[in-house]
Amino acid sequence: MERLVEKAEILMEALPFITKFRGKTFVIKYGGNAMAKADLKVAFAQDILMLKYIGINPVIVHGGGPQIGQMLKRMGLESKFVGGLRVTDRETMEVVEMVLGGLVNKSIVMLINRYAGGHIRAVGLTGKDGGLIRAKKLDAQEYFRQMGDFRPTELLDLGHVGEVEYIDTQILKHLEEDNYIPVIAPVGFDTEGNAYNINADFVASAVAGALKAEKVIFLTDIEGLKDEQGNTVSSINVERINRMIEEGVIKGGMIPKVKACIQALSQGVKKAHILDGRIPHCVLLEIFTSEGIGTEIVS
Amino acid sequence: MERLVEKAEILMEALPFITKFRGKTFVIKYGGNAMAKADLKVAFAQDILMLKYIGINPVIVHGGGPQIGQMLKRMGLESKFVGGLRVTDRETMEVVEMVLGGLVNKSIVMLINRYAGGHIRAVGLTGKDGGLIRAKKLDAQEYFRQMGDFRPTELLDLGHVGEVEYIDTQILKHLEEDNYIPVIAPVGFDTEGNAYNINADFVASAVAGALKAEKVIFLTDIEGLKDEQGNTVSSINVERINRMIEEGVIKGGMIPKVKACIQALSQGVKKAHILDGRIPHCVLLEIFTSEGIGTEIVS
Amino acid sequence: MERLVEKAEILMEALPFITKFRGKTFVIKYGGNAMAKADLKVAFAQDILMLKYIGINPVIVHGGGPQIGQMLKRMGLESKFVGGLRVTDRETMEVVEMVLGGLVNKSIVMLINRYAGGHIRAVGLTGKDGGLIRAKKLDAQEYFRQMGDFRPTELLDLGHVGEVEYIDTQILKHLEEDNYIPVIAPVGFDTEGNAYNINADFVASAVAGALKAEKVIFLTDIEGLKDEQGNTVSSINVERINRMIEEGVIKGGMIPKVKACIQALSQGVKKAHILDGRIPHCVLLEIFTSEGIGTEIVS
Amino acid sequence: MERLVEKAEILMEALPFITKFRGKTFVIKYGGNAMAKADLKVAFAQDILMLKYIGINPVIVHGGGPQIGQMLKRMGLESKFVGGLRVTDRETMEVVEMVLGGLVNKSIVMLINRYAGGHIRAVGLTGKDGGLIRAKKLDAQEYFRQMGDFRPTELLDLGHVGEVEYIDTQILKHLEEDNYIPVIAPVGFDTEGNAYNINADFVASAVAGALKAEKVIFLTDIEGLKDEQGNTVSSINVERINRMIEEGVIKGGMIPKVKACIQALSQGVKKAHILDGRIPHCVLLEIFTSEGIGTEIVS
Amino acid sequence: MERLVEKAEILMEALPFITKFRGKTFVIKYGGNAMAKADLKVAFAQDILMLKYIGINPVIVHGGGPQIGQMLKRMGLESKFVGGLRVTDRETMEVVEMVLGGLVNKSIVMLINRYAGGHIRAVGLTGKDGGLIRAKKLDAQEYFRQMGDFRPTELLDLGHVGEVEYIDTQILKHLEEDNYIPVIAPVGFDTEGNAYNINADFVASAVAGALKAEKVIFLTDIEGLKDEQGNTVSSINVERINRMIEEGVIKGGMIPKVKACIQALSQGVKKAHILDGRIPHCVLLEIFTSEGIGTEIVS
Amino acid sequence: MERLVEKAEILMEALPFITKFRGKTFVIKYGGNAMAKADLKVAFAQDILMLKYIGINPVIVHGGGPQIGQMLKRMGLESKFVGGLRVTDRETMEVVEMVLGGLVNKSIVMLINRYAGGHIRAVGLTGKDGGLIRAKKLDAQEYFRQMGDFRPTELLDLGHVGEVEYIDTQILKHLEEDNYIPVIAPVGFDTEGNAYNINADFVASAVAGALKAEKVIFLTDIEGLKDEQGNTVSSINVERINRMIEEGVIKGGMIPKVKACIQALSQGVKKAHILDGRIPHCVLLEIFTSEGIGTEIVS
Repeated sequence: MERLVEKAEILMEALPFITKFRGKTFVIKYGGNAMAKADLKVAFAQDILMLKYIGINPVIVHGGGPQIGQMLKRMGLESKFVGGLRVTDRETMEVVEMVLGGLVNKSIVMLINRYAGGHIRAVGLTGKDGGLIRAKKLDAQEYFRQMGDFRPTELLDLGHVGEVEYIDTQILKHLEEDNYIPVIAPVGFDTEGNAYNINADFVASAVAGALKAEKVIFLTDIEGLKDEQGNTVSSINVERINRMIEEGVIKGGMIPKVKACIQALSQGVKKAHILDGRIPHCVLLEIFTSEGIGTEIVS
Repeated sequence: MERLVEKAEILMEALPFITKFRGKTFVIKYGGNAMAKADLKVAFAQDILMLKYIGINPVIVHGGGPQIGQMLKRMGLESKFVGGLRVTDRETMEVVEMVLGGLVNKSIVMLINRYAGGHIRAVGLTGKDGGLIRAKKLDAQEYFRQMGDFRPTELLDLGHVGEVEYIDTQILKHLEEDNYIPVIAPVGFDTEGNAYNINADFVASAVAGALKAEKVIFLTDIEGLKDEQGNTVSSINVERINRMIEEGVIKGGMIPKVKACIQALSQGVKKAHILDGRIPHCVLLEIFTSEGIGTEIVS
Repeated sequence: MERLVEKAEILMEALPFITKFRGKTFVIKYGGNAMAKADLKVAFAQDILMLKYIGINPVIVHGGGPQIGQMLKRMGLESKFVGGLRVTDRETMEVVEMVLGGLVNKSIVMLINRYAGGHIRAVGLTGKDGGLIRAKKLDAQEYFRQMGDFRPTELLDLGHVGEVEYIDTQILKHLEEDNYIPVIAPVGFDTEGNAYNINADFVASAVAGALKAEKVIFLTDIEGLKDEQGNTVSSINVERINRMIEEGVIKGGMIPKVKACIQALSQGVKKAHILDGRIPHCVLLEIFTSEGIGTEIVS
Repeated sequence: MERLVEKAEILMEALPFITKFRGKTFVIKYGGNAMAKADLKVAFAQDILMLKYIGINPVIVHGGGPQIGQMLKRMGLESKFVGGLRVTDRETMEVVEMVLGGLVNKSIVMLINRYAGGHIRAVGLTGKDGGLIRAKKLDAQEYFRQMGDFRPTELLDLGHVGEVEYIDTQILKHLEEDNYIPVIAPVGFDTEGNAYNINADFVASAVAGALKAEKVIFLTDIEGLKDEQGNTVSSINVERINRMIEEGVIKGGMIPKVKACIQALSQGVKKAHILDGRIPHCVLLEIFTSEGIGTEIVS
Repeated sequence: MERLVEKAEILMEALPFITKFRGKTFVIKYGGNAMAKADLKVAFAQDILMLKYIGINPVIVHGGGPQIGQMLKRMGLESKFVGGLRVTDRETMEVVEMVLGGLVNKSIVMLINRYAGGHIRAVGLTGKDGGLIRAKKLDAQEYFRQMGDFRPTELLDLGHVGEVEYIDTQILKHLEEDNYIPVIAPVGFDTEGNAYNINADFVASAVAGALKAEKVIFLTDIEGLKDEQGNTVSSINVERINRMIEEGVIKGGMIPKVKACIQALSQGVKKAHILDGRIPHCVLLEIFTSEGIGTEIVS
Repeated sequence: MERLVEKAEILMEALPFITKFRGKTFVIKYGGNAMAKADLKVAFAQDILMLKYIGINPVIVHGGGPQIGQMLKRMGLESKFVGGLRVTDRETMEVVEMVLGGLVNKSIVMLINRYAGGHIRAVGLTGKDGGLIRAKKLDAQEYFRQMGDFRPTELLDLGHVGEVEYIDTQILKHLEEDNYIPVIAPVGFDTEGNAYNINADFVASAVAGALKAEKVIFLTDIEGLKDEQGNTVSSINVERINRMIEEGVIKGGMIPKVKACIQALSQGVKKAHILDGRIPHCVLLEIFTSEGIGTEIVS
């Protein structure tokens, strides 16, 4: 009986959030451990379907760095990074497209479809499908400047590393109307047909902005943003983040991630979340419980 | 962290049921303690809204015997019962209509609306609204025969006690399409405009049958059906119920209730449930947990 | 043959009005003799259905003062009035809700449904259904001041006498789309769930304003507004009414009625009509003949 | 006041008929005096609009024999008839098309549009427009046999006199959906593009049959069908009509008209009416009063 | 094989034009040789259907001067012209309506329908149908002034010669939605029901303007506009046309035609074309090939 | 002028085919030279868009054998074939998915999108997206028997070579409604999530059957089916094909292709075509000219 009371309490705790988020769009950047471990993968698929069933529209953007690395290795090609960005020559770009669009994307689609019921299905897209992601060559100098990384870049050619120029949301809206869950690989194209390898965090942020999403959620392998004392910050605004960057509290690989959050907020997304993807059902818990896990970022 | 895992588990336990019941109609007979105690009332309203939010269509049928009794007393009128049925003369019928249609019905509507969000609202109906419940005078002899009550009825006139002749589901379907929750008072009318006081259990059963509902759920003040040993039966079929009636295990006031269940099943309703309305959120728990509380009846 | 010619003439006289009013909303305050006498009741139901059949959307708001009075008397409770308003303590409010929502409202619904054909049906509502009428405690001092009644009100507590704060037209629009005739009892509620007894004239006026109705029509037991010489005025504007109030030509119980008319006009209703409800089919005659009966009020 | 009572009575008499015929299609053969005299023309236009306003779908089929005769005369061409049918050589056919399609049809369209309000408009059609009337050369021998006219026909060539082969109702349905009143000239065409002059009564009957019309109404210059004693028959069935033809009570030009009625009934039209088009508003009076004027024919 | 290559090339040449014009409206003035010779007629019908099939909405406006002349002659009536305009007394107007609305219009409808497939059909309209063309008596003085024809006009009465006052596009839009091809005879009407004979070029121009058409195309019996040297001009703007009128290069009957073009452009039509209707399939060739035939006029 | 006549003729030749095929679905197997050479690729994209513009729904299924072979080689993996089927172990399957789903599929999508205008876009799918292709392990013994290849197969394990079990057309229908061109990679999945490499010809045939397509078109590197004399057969039926297989005229790799054709026909597809993909615009020429190129197969 006690157990029943507790169950009821937990279900009721979810009620106001269901009311609040019905009909809203959540863009979720999927990656890291949550995409690697079998049980976390299943929990993720279930979370996404749960959102869809209760009337939230989840849109997934995934990465795939480790998988690209393995494939390059298998093909005897070298992985080279500059400031966290993979130098992507023509041959590497082909591998990126194959691995992200042909393997990783489809395995996520398959994962969700295996647990789906009713008329709900996942559909995988790269930026080429439906003209979804128009990109251009990344302005590396500007990028590093923004990331607080003042390395000399004049001689630097990152090849097919790109940045989002325009998100054509038409295909996402059509899929949503017809009850599909879009799964997006972060590959863009320019009007001459060149493909670009884009940081999945920034694709998630741009997609969320273009869809005027309620939330953009980043699954990571950390507990959340840490403050000066090393404690996880549960809620933070842009101003304080900028200060923490200046003060060097946020640094290295965290900078692009929080920059992606800030970009989404500046385009009208209500909240950005950095979640610990190592907790099973972290998406569900963040959304439907009052505790909140990880760090939420508001403008 | 353990708490989080548990929360996630409970939310996930609900997932397959959400998938299963989406778009289905549940008719819920509301009465007894669940309609009398403040905390149970709030829990009931929340349960109903929860169903609606996740895409189930709840339809409520309520009783109101105690409230009618009080009002009659206040007006110096006598409450007279024959075999569990209130003898309803013209004056009593007026009180029944006033109390059920004017007070009890509207207080349930108000209760739900206070907790509702978005565009969801409750709307109260009696059988007269939209021509919902066409009724006729109860054939008392036949009724008592069916209930295993062989009293002489030749001289018996129960007055305005009625039985359902036809449910015109049009208004219920229109309200459902427009996102309302119908709340029904068990008052019917005949083509000459006479009003009838009908047992709410049978109204719930007839409405469920006419809507081809997935479930009809009766909130009661008992734990469920008891077997010969006095244990609560968690699942039972019609055949065994009939045997238990014959053997006198089910008797008295329980007979009409199980007869209402059987009637609904015979009209195509998938399952009938006798729940313990004294447990807060019993509707939610029955639907979204695998435990199941109370007794489920299948054909 | 002569009779045929006359018949044709009368039908043809109606034509321009049908053209003019098709698709428009008419709010009709129903009360007095028209609600008391059997033949007038039938004629009223037929008029309302006639409007609906030819594409006008009638919305009915009814009163029920005499019925409340009788019920209070039967229950040994006293009717107390201050300046035409019924002092409504908690117990009285319960009786108001029961009588208006449970008896009067449903008997009007029944009356219309008995004469209805096709897919047209009446549905009864109180202000609680669909959240239709949000109300608050009447500001008695302000009210009496507006009615030109300068009695001291500091110590006055009218209890649950309310005024309209907001009309949520959603349920009315949904019912209209689905071909129902809404019948409204003048009971409102506040966000804490308290019920209020509101003057039906002002409810009709507020509903007409919120629906941007073409006309608001008041059925009364008088021939119309009288001028200084005691002649019925067939058409009048707000300015002249105000002058007539100042000069004491309009006085007493007529003041709230004309104030309700003026309020509706100020919210965009095209015309208000004070009709003699004692004439059978007065609604039909007013709308479909060029004579015009009673008094029309324009801004 | 007495006048008001009478007015109300007449309007109320119309009510059950409005209920009954809402959404139904009435095909009206327009011709004779009703198409010649100014006041009758206006009354006809008003009747048609009245039907449309209250939700009935009128479809008009017109003749134009006298106008064709006049034009032929003006052009120095001879009018030749065999058994009531106009011998229609190529030159005459051109005149038929010009007069019916260019003059008579458009003047009826204009007549209706002048009195129309709102978004209602008449649109004129010949059988060529939208492929409405596919026709073939009349089988004269068979025709005369059916009309009980046993003249030798072997050598007879009536030229472009046709009979209906198929009514393509698509254009009529589209016009109805978009709120237009179709006005049809009785000119058909075959798949080789030849035009045919068809008896308007039979076109009306075929259109009514194809539309599964509620009624087909023929405006004539007689009071109705006469029985053996010369009294007008108010209601008659097919069996009795056939007997009256056999007995020679119905003869000559009345035979094709009643045959057209019978044909419509055999194709599912509910009732056929032969009305006296010389009575102003005869259509309105027939439909909305209980008297009934002229003769109604049922199967 | 060479032939195949050429075929493919020609089909591919059409592709960008199909892309460009899909969903756009083209108003085509049909007349002259294209309406007289059998093979040109068939080619015209095929062109119009081709446009419709690929998603362009053709609207046809036709003339019929020669046919009117012949009919007048046959009836022993005189054709009288002033400055290119037919003096149209009452009797002539009747002939105009008969010939245009009853013969010419329906023969074009028939022509198109014979070659049509699927659900596409032509429907003929005069200005009276659906209230399409509201007209008024032509202001002859102003007209001649605009055409650079300074004859004294005080005593001139052209009778029923009219000019467009208003195009009510509703019927055209409804026909387009339902997949019909409208064929319009240039007859207008005023609010008193008078008919007017209007220059078909100006009707085409006004219809194109009211529909915000992409193109208005005039089929003529000339190669195109000629410049000072007598060469056909392939593209020209309004300014240069006006200069050519001033310089007398454009003169006589060409002035009204280019004025009609200019009027259409001033009302938002993108381009006007003067085509040589003697070339089979000139419409198709103009639209789907890059050559362009005849003269295009832009603002 | 002669050239114009010819152009018009060619455009007109296309007309009846446009009429005939509007709204129909064509499934096109894309492969061979048409997918390898730059100019043929552009011509193919243009053809597909041309179909879409004029209202035909093209669905593309592509192969990619050579690309898979190259990638395997680059990765140092061996390509092994048995009876024309690639032995597909787990590692090879991964390469198949990567190359088909990530590279070939997306490059075709990109190719089409570069030439597309308006709101038309291509979207790439594998059998996993939207649950499109449910497959199972190929029954090799049965397969070789059907292909007339009686090799011993008991010991044969082709690994992930699959055959179609079920095509879920839902995603194709949704994409068609929303104006997308689906491009399908022949990768299927079973309910346990295993991926299968399926012969693209059979996928095209199964998709065409499931969509009740008008045509299934195979682009090949041959002129068409050859008869005993080595002449290309322009039209042939199933019976004669079966005879030609028996007689050994059709043999080797052509057998699976004609079997795929026969399978499509047996599932209700109207016609199958084997086209010479080396002819630029062969799809367009086949569909819009009367010559017909390659071989058409009818049941």
